[in-house]
Amino acid sequence: MSTGAEVVVNRLLAEGVDVCFANPGTSEMHFVAALDAAPAMRPVLCLFEGVATGAADGYARIAGRPAATLLHLGPGMANGLANLHNARRAFSPVVNVVGDHATYHQALDAPLESDIDALARWAHGSVHRPESAADLDAAVHAAVQSATSTPGRVATLILPADYSWGSEPQKPVRDNLVGQQGSSPDHTDTLDLAGAAELLRAQGERAVLLLGGAATGVGGLQAAARIRAATGARVLVETFPARLARGQGVPAIERLGYLAEQATQQLAGSTHLVLVGARSPVSFFAYPGKPSVLVPDGTEVRNLAIDELARLAGELGGQLPNTPQPDPVELPTGTLNPQNLAQVIAALLPENAIISDEANTSGVFLPAATASSPRHDVLTLTGGAIGQGLPVAVGAAIAAPDRPVIALQSDGSAAYTISALWTMAREHLDVTVVILNNHAYAILQLELLRVGTQADGERSRSLLDLSRPDIDFASIAEGFGVPATRAGTAQELADQFRAALAEPGPHLIDAALPTWSPG
Amino acid sequence: MSTGAEVVVNRLLAEGVDVCFANPGTSEMHFVAALDAAPAMRPVLCLFEGVATGAADGYARIAGRPAATLLHLGPGMANGLANLHNARRAFSPVVNVVGDHATYHQALDAPLESDIDALARWAHGSVHRPESAADLDAAVHAAVQSATSTPGRVATLILPADYSWGSEPQKPVRDNLVGQQGSSPDHTDTLDLAGAAELLRAQGERAVLLLGGAATGVGGLQAAARIRAATGARVLVETFPARLARGQGVPAIERLGYLAEQATQQLAGSTHLVLVGARSPVSFFAYPGKPSVLVPDGTEVRNLAIDELARLAGELGGQLPNTPQPDPVELPTGTLNPQNLAQVIAALLPENAIISDEANTSGVFLPAATASSPRHDVLTLTGGAIGQGLPVAVGAAIAAPDRPVIALQSDGSAAYTISALWTMAREHLDVTVVILNNHAYAILQLELLRVGTQADGERSRSLLDLSRPDIDFASIAEGFGVPATRAGTAQELADQFRAALAEPGPHLIDAALPTWSPG
Repeated sequence: MSTGAEVVVNRLLAEGVDVCFANPGTSEMHFVAALDAAPAMRPVLCLFEGVATGAADGYARIAGRPAATLLHLGPGMANGLANLHNARRAFSPVVNVVGDHATYHQALDAPLESDIDALARWAHGSVHRPESAADLDAAVHAAVQSATSTPGRVATLILPADYSWGSEPQKPVRDNLVGQQGSSPDHTDTLDLAGAAELLRAQGERAVLLLGGAATGVGGLQAAARIRAATGARVLVETFPARLARGQGVPAIERLGYLAEQATQQLAGSTHLVLVGARSPVSFFAYPGKPSVLVPDGTEVRNLAIDELARLAGELGGQLPNTPQPDPVELPTGTLNPQNLAQVIAALLPENAIISDEANTSGVFLPAATASSPRHDVLTLTGGAIGQGLPVAVGAAIAAPDRPVIALQSDGSAAYTISALWTMAREHLDVTVVILNNHAYAILQLELLRVGTQADGERSRSLLDLSRPDIDFASIAEGFGVPATRAGTAQELADQFRAALAEPGPHLIDAALPTWSPG
Repeated sequence: MSTGAEVVVNRLLAEGVDVCFANPGTSEMHFVAALDAAPAMRPVLCLFEGVATGAADGYARIAGRPAATLLHLGPGMANGLANLHNARRAFSPVVNVVGDHATYHQALDAPLESDIDALARWAHGSVHRPESAADLDAAVHAAVQSATSTPGRVATLILPADYSWGSEPQKPVRDNLVGQQGSSPDHTDTLDLAGAAELLRAQGERAVLLLGGAATGVGGLQAAARIRAATGARVLVETFPARLARGQGVPAIERLGYLAEQATQQLAGSTHLVLVGARSPVSFFAYPGKPSVLVPDGTEVRNLAIDELARLAGELGGQLPNTPQPDPVELPTGTLNPQNLAQVIAALLPENAIISDEANTSGVFLPAATASSPRHDVLTLTGGAIGQGLPVAVGAAIAAPDRPVIALQSDGSAAYTISALWTMAREHLDVTVVILNNHAYAILQLELLRVGTQADGERSRSLLDLSRPDIDFASIAEGFGVPATRAGTAQELADQFRAALAEPGPHLIDAALPTWSPG
């Protein structure tokens, strides 16, 4: 039995499309896996979607036939649009394969959800959205036919993840996925102050407050901590807050986990979920056989206005717990790894810093380590469209010239918008960039397992691997005018981080982590 | 009397928006000029639109108020979309200012034309398209109000160039701009073989054949040269062909000029324009007081199918003129400049090369120089969305592994999709990249004059200047795994170009040109 992705790859090959310029993500992992069994298809990894689409254009102009691109949902398509515009003007045949969320996941407004069709139509091309997994073969045929009809155009096949997984129709794990608990605050009843107080008093730890938006500043976190102290209610922060206050004097409140497995555990046993500026939590992606909605069955979801949070804390009589100051993290030694890297950052983080956090997999130890650091703000990847960490650091540094900005940046995402370094140099912004360089799209190596593929072939692995050649970010930074160093040990990182913070203007540290592999 | 752009800048300032993350183009030149008189507005140049939008997001998360972005038409907006998606998810207030063609130019389907509104809507924000120049002040106010309404969103102001130029309504230079000659072949009568032969015999040099699409290969160019020999008709190639055959054995046929002034001269005195796979020519941008349609008044426009071209040459009895082989270009000496750079490339261009040409202003001497080079193909920037040259070279090299690929790449455009170098390294593609590094958005320095602004202030100039710091492309290339050198003289370029061609795999040469300034 073929997966849907195998049907797509084989039909592309049958139609004469045997090169694929790829920048895949989780929703394209079955396509990646299908390449292992299709040696005739040449996958070419590009570090940014605009490279993939421009390469497909150049390929068509010389080969006289289309290549495929492999793009990751709407944001991936968006990054490829400008060169699709050039391809349209060249009348180049191009076949985009754009992964989409599983069909039943699309209504949940998960972070990467957007109107892919609108982007595909923008390039004046044809849009092919198969009706079912059984329709895939015909949809690929139609897309290639459209691309290669005279005088040539851009055809876009939108490939929902569940169609990729199997030829059999996929059912959501629960029938009540959509709408029941509501995917946005708009669809959920709002509590007033008295109602909220009553609910939290009655439910105690069976109630969960989920903080988002403006509720993740110091005031909101303190109010929530007082409510927790008064009622025993659980308190969580949304997975990817726009701006989160942290460090000394700020109540440490756990974030809802990125992995659905973690989030499910954090919400288990709740009877009520109270959203304070947050959305009702859904899984980032859909996974075969796993629920997309993270709210437990039977848990009721309510809203509470952010403005009510402090009043509610007063009403409930909660006092800010006098938690002992955690011990400062000590400077570690040894070859760099994600754990001691986090310890170095935490130990040396200056007062009032802003962290632009696009550390992704390599940043897993950061939250625990920095809880005892001086007061700081963390800006996270709110929409899942990678390549924001360096630009956000630019903006933060211009907004707050007196605060040190630290960009914790994974290697794969850094390549998207690397020219942000030049603006840091020109504007002499006080940004310290630490590249967490594990030479891989590590998160995709993890996701390849999580979506249940058996892929372990060289071809699929090659699309997740950023070595061959290794990227030397220090050299790139110097090219853009930013002084840069390389760190291979915790001591080196500490010395370089301290020096970068002490000197005004931008610096980059290329922190060599072990090449990531799952398990 | 304020220009419209000054109204926009002043209203932004009055609303508290005093930072602008900018990546401007020709349609934004009046906005750039307006910055000289508005010292309270801080312009921050970004080398790619995704940096500008991400910076605006980061700014808003820290400052709690919006910054503006300055983006260049639809393709510029497209490049900024992914980080606008993240901004939307962060509920960050952002005010995009997106330049558009002059209102009367929009229907002409000029190369950079696209549906900007569709892109702006994609980010779930508000779209503000003023009805007239008099409406600008209100439109800016509405955009800022929308962006800053709770909980914050992305607002996009679409700013037509003619509204930027002045507060008075602008009229097209001719009343018959739109539709008359037709902006695409679909709207134009098609000649049959007999009709075409009759027309060309009767009109001689008063007829112009404009070749585009598949007509710019060797076969099409030879047929056109035979027709020219038989009838005296003028023959031109469209300004930005997808793939143009050139060099020894290929008839040298001039391209229609990028500057409207050139094109007008090339088409002067024609009674008939015959489009062979090309569109009816329009100006790339609109300019105050200059016509947008380049077809002379009274010239009739007809189509001819590309397939008919060779038959027509036979019917007319034209022979391929036995033009003397032009003398090979000799290797020049001296400090590098655009002229001797072109001579080096032309003298050393290998047989059967593919040139990916995004040389822009620095490439002005290339066509004349390479006419005597061995047979080669040139791939140009068809849609005007910069950042395609390196990706197109990747695709061309994969399509034709036995042909040398030369990417002639201007510095400003190279920064857009610079990570294409890594794919060249991984795939060991035989691409020689020559960066024509003049440390400037030189074309915009030219356009700033052409649109009639008087800007000569430090602030406007700074947005067109890529020095401070200079970009060291050799260092960046090494960082992405591509061996690189720097050339400051014609001899150095020749030595390095020869060496790069002799060795398989990718190489980059950072060719230091004089810092460009107009006039």
